[in-house]
Amino acid sequence: MNILIVHAHPEPLSFNTALKDLSVNELTAAGHTVTVSDLYAMDFNPVASRDDFAERKSPDYLVYALEQRYNYEKHTIAPDIAAEVEKVIAADLIIFNFPLFWFSVPAILKGWIDRVLISGVCYGGMRFYDQGGLKGKKAMLTFTLGGRQHMFGPDAIHGELEVMLRPILRGTLAYVGLEVLPPFVGYHVPYITPEARSEILSDYAAYLGKLDTLEPLVFPKIEDFDAKLYPKPKV
Amino acid sequence: MNILIVHAHPEPLSFNTALKDLSVNELTAAGHTVTVSDLYAMDFNPVASRDDFAERKSPDYLVYALEQRYNYEKHTIAPDIAAEVEKVIAADLIIFNFPLFWFSVPAILKGWIDRVLISGVCYGGMRFYDQGGLKGKKAMLTFTLGGRQHMFGPDAIHGELEVMLRPILRGTLAYVGLEVLPPFVGYHVPYITPEARSEILSDYAAYLGKLDTLEPLVFPKIEDFDAKLYPKPKV
Repeated sequence: MNILIVHAHPEPLSFNTALKDLSVNELTAAGHTVTVSDLYAMDFNPVASRDDFAERKSPDYLVYALEQRYNYEKHTIAPDIAAEVEKVIAADLIIFNFPLFWFSVPAILKGWIDRVLISGVCYGGMRFYDQGGLKGKKAMLTFTLGGRQHMFGPDAIHGELEVMLRPILRGTLAYVGLEVLPPFVGYHVPYITPEARSEILSDYAAYLGKLDTLEPLVFPKIEDFDAKLYPKPKV
Repeated sequence: MNILIVHAHPEPLSFNTALKDLSVNELTAAGHTVTVSDLYAMDFNPVASRDDFAERKSPDYLVYALEQRYNYEKHTIAPDIAAEVEKVIAADLIIFNFPLFWFSVPAILKGWIDRVLISGVCYGGMRFYDQGGLKGKKAMLTFTLGGRQHMFGPDAIHGELEVMLRPILRGTLAYVGLEVLPPFVGYHVPYITPEARSEILSDYAAYLGKLDTLEPLVFPKIEDFDAKLYPKPKV
């Protein structure tokens, strides 16, 4: 497989970065071709703006998604976006490797999503969820957080982790047609012993070794909705 | 009330910006003191990094939350962060005004959250949810999106909107102790008639006129969990 790892951590010595490094090594050793977009190292610009477009279909009024389609087709979209879009198109699997900030991705990674998952290529019209533009590719989240595992669950203080992550898992990755593998989570990372960290690294190596066998998460199918996206009556 | 409006839209002519302008006018006319952080106009830096700290408690290894506490106390945190923290401390109500990007906030606003809601002031230890550092203040989301109202709900294609927004409503605003008012939502904005837009503006003016009577959303209370944050047995 061609695997793209989008990594976003401000500290190169972090445990989170160690997870990224481990995945590069393990996946390369397993015969995959691995590309890394290290957003902090690239000084990636996360701000979607008019500066992303050298041409304008609508010069007086910015409609970001419209200009994404127009400028991508005309090859006038910002070069940093174009380069990332090419990596996405070439990838069979995209792994997002990040520390959870406010139960979501760090802003630099949110900006990669805002700017790189462009209208036209990744979605548009009725091309979303299982009909999304990146259909046939897979994605996975690998993240670290401060909380403990018992803080997530139906009666737990933060509720279910997959519900907290819904805007990313469903609203972003599944939305563009990606098959979403279950996340790999490193809990309580700032507070644990070196031994516990080693154990998470081993667990991650094992997880990466069985990527083929992971059951993807389940999301809506367009065929269950009508042309106006009302749910079809259940048979 | 002192009201802080944090606004994040890349197009100053947008309908979203018109909602922001309307709120400034209505709330000022009602006798409130209104401050606006227009993140695009400020060219706000959304990337949490080592550059945010003039001093370092841990010089060799960046722990972002630790340095937030240390540098805020020593007055060595980046001036743009310090200025926003002061606005938050002075505010009785914070309104976040933005277009929904990927069922979440635009990256420039995510970066405001990552950098401005600092550890120590806003949360820390057992000071979160109803015990959070911003207890006694209120917050509200005002946002526009492309989807229609029927696309959200228990059986709808995107599920419930408040569940999609959970990382912001619960994981961010409620987490820091803010009382969260129900969001004001402008649906289908890129596609609707000028008349429909006027109607949304009138609805928003009416909504702002009854802020005092809005029932806040309900979130976990720390007293329902033990010292290790396991749920206490229900009586």
